[in-house]
Amino acid sequence: MAKRDADGVDLTVGSARMESLDGFVLERVLLDAPDKKALFLLGRFKDITGEENGKRAIVILAKRHFETETSKVEQLSQTALQSIFTNDIYSKYGGTPPPSLNEINVDIICPCTDKHIAKYSKQETFIVRETPELYALVTLPYILSLPATTIQWVYNILEKKKEVERLLYEDPDAAQGFMLHPDLKWDQKQASELYCLAICHNRDLRSVRDLRQEHLPLLENIKTKSCQCIQDKYGVTQDKLRIYLHYQPSYYHLHVHFTHVDLFGAGQNVGKAILLEDVINNLAIDPDYYLKSTLSYTLGSEMDLYKAMQAHL
Amino acid sequence: MAKRDADGVDLTVGSARMESLDGFVLERVLLDAPDKKALFLLGRFKDITGEENGKRAIVILAKRHFETETSKVEQLSQTALQSIFTNDIYSKYGGTPPPSLNEINVDIICPCTDKHIAKYSKQETFIVRETPELYALVTLPYILSLPATTIQWVYNILEKKKEVERLLYEDPDAAQGFMLHPDLKWDQKQASELYCLAICHNRDLRSVRDLRQEHLPLLENIKTKSCQCIQDKYGVTQDKLRIYLHYQPSYYHLHVHFTHVDLFGAGQNVGKAILLEDVINNLAIDPDYYLKSTLSYTLGSEMDLYKAMQAHL
Repeated sequence: MAKRDADGVDLTVGSARMESLDGFVLERVLLDAPDKKALFLLGRFKDITGEENGKRAIVILAKRHFETETSKVEQLSQTALQSIFTNDIYSKYGGTPPPSLNEINVDIICPCTDKHIAKYSKQETFIVRETPELYALVTLPYILSLPATTIQWVYNILEKKKEVERLLYEDPDAAQGFMLHPDLKWDQKQASELYCLAICHNRDLRSVRDLRQEHLPLLENIKTKSCQCIQDKYGVTQDKLRIYLHYQPSYYHLHVHFTHVDLFGAGQNVGKAILLEDVINNLAIDPDYYLKSTLSYTLGSEMDLYKAMQAHL
Repeated sequence: MAKRDADGVDLTVGSARMESLDGFVLERVLLDAPDKKALFLLGRFKDITGEENGKRAIVILAKRHFETETSKVEQLSQTALQSIFTNDIYSKYGGTPPPSLNEINVDIICPCTDKHIAKYSKQETFIVRETPELYALVTLPYILSLPATTIQWVYNILEKKKEVERLLYEDPDAAQGFMLHPDLKWDQKQASELYCLAICHNRDLRSVRDLRQEHLPLLENIKTKSCQCIQDKYGVTQDKLRIYLHYQPSYYHLHVHFTHVDLFGAGQNVGKAILLEDVINNLAIDPDYYLKSTLSYTLGSEMDLYKAMQAHL
C-alpha cells in the first residue's frame, strides 16, 4: 500500500528517490526563466503500471553555477568545442564540458496543487509608452479609483502608528519633510544588500508624474539627508548608492528607493526605475518635464492598469 | 607562417577553430559571476610545440539557458537524477541531462590585452555624476585618447568585412542608416533571450552625449525599422522589447541595444541603460538636452575613465 502523510497525501512518488526523469510526461512549460536559466514544467509521472495518469507534478530545472574550486576549474579544459564564429581576436563556441562538471538542479513537487501551479506560472511583461494624454485618459483615473485603504499603511507609518522602531531619520516639515526606513526586503545584515526607503510627508504627490520644478527642494532634501543618515548608520557612502523612484510604483504616494550599487534585481531596471538624479536634472531643464513627457515602462499582463490600457495601446 | 591582420596582430589562435579547451592553462579566475552562472578565466594557450608560453587569453564560460522548443523539453526527461533530499511533496536532485541538451557558451579573447583583463576583473562599482563640465574636462579627452584600433571591429562590420552572414538588416543611408545584428551574447536559440544590436553608419556619434534634436530622424529610423525586422524574423513584437543605449558604453560608436523584456542583467540597470524612448522624449523636450544634462552612471574602480575622474569627484 502507498505511503501516506498525515493529511492522507500519497507520498509514493514524492518520497521515492528517482533515478531519472524518465517517467515524466510534459503537459506544458509553466514558466521560462532565462534570468535564472531555469524552466518550470508541469506534467505527470507515469504510475507504476506505466500509465500516464500518475500524479501531477512540477519539475523545476535550473542550470547550476560552475564550481570555482581550482581543481574543478582546471578540469573544465576538457570541454569539447564547436565553433560558432570568429572575428579578429574574439571567437565564440558551443562547449560540452565533462558531464560531472555540468550537472543541473532538479526540484520536484509531486503531487502538486493548483496553488503551486499558480505560484509558478508567469504573467507576461509588456513595455508601455505612456504619453501625457494616455496618463490623463487611463492612468490618473485608475489611480483615483484605488480605494483609500490601499495606502493606509503608508499613513500609519507617517503618523507613527507603525514601524516607529524602524525609523532611521525624519524631517517633519510638511512640504519638504520625509521619513527614512530600512525596506522590509532588507534584513539589515549586509551593507552590500542595503535597501532603504524615503517616504515624503506631502500627500499630494502620487508619483513622478506629479513632480514640478517647485519640488526640487523636496527632492534635494531627501537626497542629501538620507545619504548622510545612511553613511552615518551603515557606513555606505553616496557614491555606492543607486537612488531611484519607480514608475509605475507599487503604491501612489511619492517614495524614493536607496539601494547599494551591488544589489541587482528587476526593480533596478530601466523601464521601472528612474534615478533621482535624473528626475532632478529633468526638472532643472524643464519645470514641466513630467507634465509633457512620454514615459515608457513595463507592466504585467495581469495588472489592472495594463488591462485598463489595453484598449488604448 | 602565422596569419596576421592589418595591424600585424597574429591571428593564428584567434582565428583557428579549436576543437577543445585542452591547450588552455589556467592562470587565475578573473571573475566569478554567479548571477550570470559564468566564469571569466585568464590563462595561456599552449603554442604549437606544446609549450605553455603561448598567447594570453580570456576564456569566458557561461551556462546556457534551456531550449524551450517542446521536442527539446521532452528530451530532458532523459536526465539522470541523483537524490539530494526529500521532504514531503518536495524533493531535490542533481541532474545529468543528455550532453547535447546541456552545452555551455565559450567565448575566447586571444590574444587579450591588459585592458581586457581589467574589464573582466572584479572591481568595485561607483555611481558618478557627470556634469557637462566634467564631460568636457575628463570624459571627452578620455574618449579622444583611445586608439582608433579599439573600434576597428565596428568598422569591419560596417564595411561588411566581418559578420556579414549575421546581418539582419541594413539601411545604408550615411546620415540615418544603420546595421542590425544579433548581439554576440545571444546564441539565437530562444526568442525570450533576444538580444540585437543596431550600429549606426554615422561615425561622428560617440555616445548619447553627442545626440541633438537633429538626430531624431536617425533614432526613429533605428527604432521603427529594427522593430519591424525583429518582428518579421523572430516574431517578437515591439511591446516585448526593451530598447536602450548604454552610458557609458563599452565602445564609443553609437549603438542601440534591443533585448527581450524578460531578459535581465546589469546591462538593463538604471545608471547604465537609457531607454531609446527616453532619449527621443528628451530631445523633443529640449534640442540640447544631452549638452546640458548631468548624467549619472556606474563605473568600475579599475576602469581608466574612473581613474581619470577620481581627482574631480
